[in-house]
Amino acid sequence: MANIGYFDNAKKEYVITNMRPRRPLSNYLWNELFLLNIDNFGFGESFLRISSEERRVLFGGGEATRLVYIKDRDTKEFYDINRNYRDLAFDKYECHVGIGYQQIISEYKGIETSLTVTVPTVGHAELWKITVKNNSNTDRNIDLIPYGRPDANVTTHLAYGHADYDSALGGLYFCHDAFAVDHDYSGVYMKASELPDSYDLSDINFKGVYNSWANPQALKEDSLTNKGASFDDTYCAAMQFKLTLKPNEEKVLYVVFGIATGIEDAIAQSNEYLAENAFENAIAEVKRIADEMDALYVLDTPDEYINIMINTWLKRQISLGKTWGRVCSKGFRDIMQDTAGLAAFDGKMAREKILLCLAHQRPNGNPMRAFDPIARTPYYDGAAWIPATVLAYLNETGDLSVLDEVCPYFECDEEGTVFDHMYRGLRFLLDNRGARNMVLWGGGDWNDSINNTGYQQKGESAWLSIATVKAITEFCRICEIMGGKDELIANIKEEQALLKAAILENAFEGDQFIYGITDWDELVGSKTNVEGQTYLNAQTWAVLADMLDEEGLNKIMQTVEDKLKCDFGYVQCEPPYSKKDEHIGRMAYFIPGGYENGSVYNHGVAFKIAADCKLGHADLAYETLKLISYDNPKNDNSGVEPYVVTNMYLGPQEPNRPGFSFYSWITGTAGWIYRDVTEFMLGVGGEWTGLKIKPCLPSAWNEATVSRVYRGATYNISFKRTGSYKLIVDGNAIDGCIAPVFPEGSVHTVVCEF
Amino acid sequence: MANIGYFDNAKKEYVITNMRPRRPLSNYLWNELFLLNIDNFGFGESFLRISSEERRVLFGGGEATRLVYIKDRDTKEFYDINRNYRDLAFDKYECHVGIGYQQIISEYKGIETSLTVTVPTVGHAELWKITVKNNSNTDRNIDLIPYGRPDANVTTHLAYGHADYDSALGGLYFCHDAFAVDHDYSGVYMKASELPDSYDLSDINFKGVYNSWANPQALKEDSLTNKGASFDDTYCAAMQFKLTLKPNEEKVLYVVFGIATGIEDAIAQSNEYLAENAFENAIAEVKRIADEMDALYVLDTPDEYINIMINTWLKRQISLGKTWGRVCSKGFRDIMQDTAGLAAFDGKMAREKILLCLAHQRPNGNPMRAFDPIARTPYYDGAAWIPATVLAYLNETGDLSVLDEVCPYFECDEEGTVFDHMYRGLRFLLDNRGARNMVLWGGGDWNDSINNTGYQQKGESAWLSIATVKAITEFCRICEIMGGKDELIANIKEEQALLKAAILENAFEGDQFIYGITDWDELVGSKTNVEGQTYLNAQTWAVLADMLDEEGLNKIMQTVEDKLKCDFGYVQCEPPYSKKDEHIGRMAYFIPGGYENGSVYNHGVAFKIAADCKLGHADLAYETLKLISYDNPKNDNSGVEPYVVTNMYLGPQEPNRPGFSFYSWITGTAGWIYRDVTEFMLGVGGEWTGLKIKPCLPSAWNEATVSRVYRGATYNISFKRTGSYKLIVDGNAIDGCIAPVFPEGSVHTVVCEF
Repeated sequence: MANIGYFDNAKKEYVITNMRPRRPLSNYLWNELFLLNIDNFGFGESFLRISSEERRVLFGGGEATRLVYIKDRDTKEFYDINRNYRDLAFDKYECHVGIGYQQIISEYKGIETSLTVTVPTVGHAELWKITVKNNSNTDRNIDLIPYGRPDANVTTHLAYGHADYDSALGGLYFCHDAFAVDHDYSGVYMKASELPDSYDLSDINFKGVYNSWANPQALKEDSLTNKGASFDDTYCAAMQFKLTLKPNEEKVLYVVFGIATGIEDAIAQSNEYLAENAFENAIAEVKRIADEMDALYVLDTPDEYINIMINTWLKRQISLGKTWGRVCSKGFRDIMQDTAGLAAFDGKMAREKILLCLAHQRPNGNPMRAFDPIARTPYYDGAAWIPATVLAYLNETGDLSVLDEVCPYFECDEEGTVFDHMYRGLRFLLDNRGARNMVLWGGGDWNDSINNTGYQQKGESAWLSIATVKAITEFCRICEIMGGKDELIANIKEEQALLKAAILENAFEGDQFIYGITDWDELVGSKTNVEGQTYLNAQTWAVLADMLDEEGLNKIMQTVEDKLKCDFGYVQCEPPYSKKDEHIGRMAYFIPGGYENGSVYNHGVAFKIAADCKLGHADLAYETLKLISYDNPKNDNSGVEPYVVTNMYLGPQEPNRPGFSFYSWITGTAGWIYRDVTEFMLGVGGEWTGLKIKPCLPSAWNEATVSRVYRGATYNISFKRTGSYKLIVDGNAIDGCIAPVFPEGSVHTVVCEF
Repeated sequence: MANIGYFDNAKKEYVITNMRPRRPLSNYLWNELFLLNIDNFGFGESFLRISSEERRVLFGGGEATRLVYIKDRDTKEFYDINRNYRDLAFDKYECHVGIGYQQIISEYKGIETSLTVTVPTVGHAELWKITVKNNSNTDRNIDLIPYGRPDANVTTHLAYGHADYDSALGGLYFCHDAFAVDHDYSGVYMKASELPDSYDLSDINFKGVYNSWANPQALKEDSLTNKGASFDDTYCAAMQFKLTLKPNEEKVLYVVFGIATGIEDAIAQSNEYLAENAFENAIAEVKRIADEMDALYVLDTPDEYINIMINTWLKRQISLGKTWGRVCSKGFRDIMQDTAGLAAFDGKMAREKILLCLAHQRPNGNPMRAFDPIARTPYYDGAAWIPATVLAYLNETGDLSVLDEVCPYFECDEEGTVFDHMYRGLRFLLDNRGARNMVLWGGGDWNDSINNTGYQQKGESAWLSIATVKAITEFCRICEIMGGKDELIANIKEEQALLKAAILENAFEGDQFIYGITDWDELVGSKTNVEGQTYLNAQTWAVLADMLDEEGLNKIMQTVEDKLKCDFGYVQCEPPYSKKDEHIGRMAYFIPGGYENGSVYNHGVAFKIAADCKLGHADLAYETLKLISYDNPKNDNSGVEPYVVTNMYLGPQEPNRPGFSFYSWITGTAGWIYRDVTEFMLGVGGEWTGLKIKPCLPSAWNEATVSRVYRGATYNISFKRTGSYKLIVDGNAIDGCIAPVFPEGSVHTVVCEF
């Protein structure tokens, strides 16, 4: 297997030991206002959120965001400890990916140095802790030079900018007081827990115009230049500290890098952040919050990696999404899905997100594709995601009042209850149908990249029709919970039946569903096509929507196994398009194996695991999960971070890097995989009347435990394979598979035989 | 003096011998469609113009745009010849900045290598000629690896992109066939005059994820990887050629880098560009066109640097501006001024540019600040620039018909003749006046950065009022040339007199003019101000507009000498603002010494030279010109290219880099300095009735010659200092200072005693 590192579960850390993985491995540190992307070198941008904008604080882009230089004053040798630009033979390198911090440790010629970066839970600064330890047996004269690259230019007009050492601050201050800017964050500062011996503020002086970070000009001299900078697009923040270390002596330096509204603000902030134990307290607070979330669902299965991911890391990934998901301009569909997962952790935030999303639904029932920033592409699938999320919220929280909450429609004076929003959404889907009675495709559906099939209001999406069938089922369940809606239920079920019939008539090919029919009456995802014959989501959603009887569903899922499986997952469609097709849209312009055009798009794979579980195919579900794991031996150097899930592996037909993962973290896949394992495989998920416990565990597992907080009560569940299902709650056998709701704070023992 | 290089006039080259100047030194290569910025390393972006957009072809940004690697197959040592990333002790380095080409020559361990880059006068490709010569006395086994960084991603959606060696092309092809892109230029190709031994298309393979250009991974192996690339944002184009060179043997390789609509287009283009002598012919054609332009005005003065600049390099800089000026989003004011200078070179293009500009004049007479792209900032000075340019056009070409040309107003159905446009412009200025009868300041005037003084329609600009006085004088001269406009002339002169009186009453302080009065009745550029007491342009334009008698004008120009002169020119204002002032606008937020806030802004210095000449201060004019020259001993390491003029030197109060020049080439200063020397110092410029010859030469010059083409005839003029003015044309003494118009093609001898 590719050598990357190992999990240190006691510390909730992943320790990267390979300084040159296939691609840099990411971690994120954040609070509500401040986001920092940091890789195994300590590189990556930081941002302050200002209303709907981001103001970058430090440069990223794979280069020298943060460096710690060490210079031996006697030998004059210098190097950076975290990127090793000089390619020296380090005696040690470790990057500890932690919950709320990133720590890089390296050792060279007897000097062990560490850089730990964290972001406190409030404010807009990053804190560094640097340690330098003399592991040799002689006194060592060492210069320590922390270096960062502030993005101090608020505007592109460099003449506004100047930077210098500020003696009142006792640190470096970069100021860009521009005319007519709509926020006050004009300053970036860097301050350390001690006053520096010298400093630099521009790479012109520190690095030199023609030098590299391997070889900065200023390190060839005894001290940095102490020169100010202005009109600069190469600002740096570098400080020199002259240390003398006896054998075994360790020196600790704290540094704060923040964004401020002025020098007074910078002074106030840095005093706070450099106070005694501020750094350690900041990390402790992040950990406390994470531990609280982790405790809501703890499982123990025979698969150690699944335990680690569910108990810690997927929750971390989901946490990032819930706060910062929108940094990738996520939209209605994405936030709705994330919220369905979030309901189990944080009902209050889930409720807020539902209302936020619905305020971006047009009065005709069709939501915006994306908001913040707004994308007006006329995708038609938004409304199909509402009932599932509302139902998940009700099931998890028991809070029926959300349905009566009044919420505006987008860009108009109309408003309506959440129930009204949900129903208008379904009406949009049901009332915008084509000649074959299936739902119109419009500008697209889940598959963003089939984006030219329905602009003429003729093309019909089979997938979206199936999703509508599913949404109606969920809507009816909500109506049942509310009570007194029998007529509405009856009417809409009739419409559902007609829609289902239309799908079966026009989109069913015996062993698969097609994906849709274009404006030009061409089938997409049909066996009659030359390319794009079979689409994954049309099959998996047919299962989730109960489009056929069990035998029929098993048959179409067999098609998935036969046609879409590859060594590292299931592809979105097969064969991928190799020829441009304007009638399909951008998907057919992508390289084969890229994104929707035949990649292993894990969001879709997560749907597939849910479908497997629904059909009771426990081993298939588990096997699928393992196929997309970082340690799948057939794709064990995919580039993905072991501690997160990726949104995509390039498909097997991709010509150059099949199986490669570009990025991870920011993907709705995390929430879906989490639900796959916790709700569908372990089978522990909220229902309106209580906690459903109905496992679908792989045949190799005979035991497992789950500790789960549900509506405030704790259920300590032991699963035991006996061959027949039985649920025993606090010693009492229960009919059915639903454990009752208990008072908040109470703790209950559950045994689930299966 | 700073060691940069030398002019080689026989070749019309500047030869840079210092590989590490203060900043990289720029050159441009271009045709109507294709622009390439190239520095002394051969780095710099290239662009294809597609309607009003640019499509980048190669990456710039100071890094590795073009590299030529050499590898000794026996020693395995490798290096790049043009940037020397490995910091080796080259035996030779020269960068020849040529007219239409850039040539970098270096030598290391007996291998002399050159890279010459040119852009043919048609098409959208750059051509490289690479020579490798064995100067050692043994056979050498050398790998030659040309490398470039194509920007092959038309959109940000990487999945559209793939690249590979194409055997039909015999070269590398990078394709980005994106959905719904509004142009066809989806491909970038690289092909050489020979087939490569191996190739690479991605830096992932060539450079390696963690390596640098000093140390590319692929050069450690015997051949490049021959791998394709897809989904890539690190494309490269590298080809390996295995050479064996005997002592003194030289190998020549041609390479073409182009942008194409498809592989067939790439094949057709590369066949053409790699045909025999295509490279040499391309350079010859650029040179032929430049020589033709150069011949229009040739001077010989005692100042060799002035001769070089006027005869060759300023014309080159002006040529770039006339074709590509708008790449820096230049606007109405800028193009109008450039066109006044252009009229002497290219009457046809000048006429086109006048009409283009006037089509962006609003029907109320006020032009757009900028178009292409459009900037709607309500600057009020646009109309004041029209008469001077139209008059220059008439004087140079004798083409009165332009005045009757009908041209639309901006964004409306109205249209009008050029004369009507010009008059409406003056009416806008005259009819939008404030309480003191001076012209309203609006959103700003020439000084873009005083941009908050007049939004309430109360602030009045003294400078713009003075510019209006000047424009009326020019307008009246045009009316006189047209004839039959006596009443209009009389009326507008009356208005001019009233405006002049208002300026003298409200803006004159005895030894200086103020710059204006804000919406809040505050003076700007007044002796009563604490900062920004004296503005250069208010004084120099008072001279150009004849605001006072000669004594009065000399007095205000003495103020310029006393208060605005510094070691390397004249500052825009003094003292610069150090405190933010919302009532001024962004200028008062700039650092002291930046742009309008007290830099040596050479556009303003060029006005000052014109004013000096107008007052007969020949020595002052010349001294001023030398102050802003690259070789001014008090600022001889400013960063500026010796072969172009810069738009700005940071002012003496700039805290970190006073005297520094950031960039050059794209500035209207080139045209103005050219006119300063040719029309005002040498005094040879078109008038309606003939060629005016009225020198204002420094006392140290007793002789000079000018050969000038005017309305198709050539005037070979010898200047001789005698102490009294006399003009002798073809042996006949002439009354006044205007040599008559002669038939096209005729050649005349002129002696001008002075």
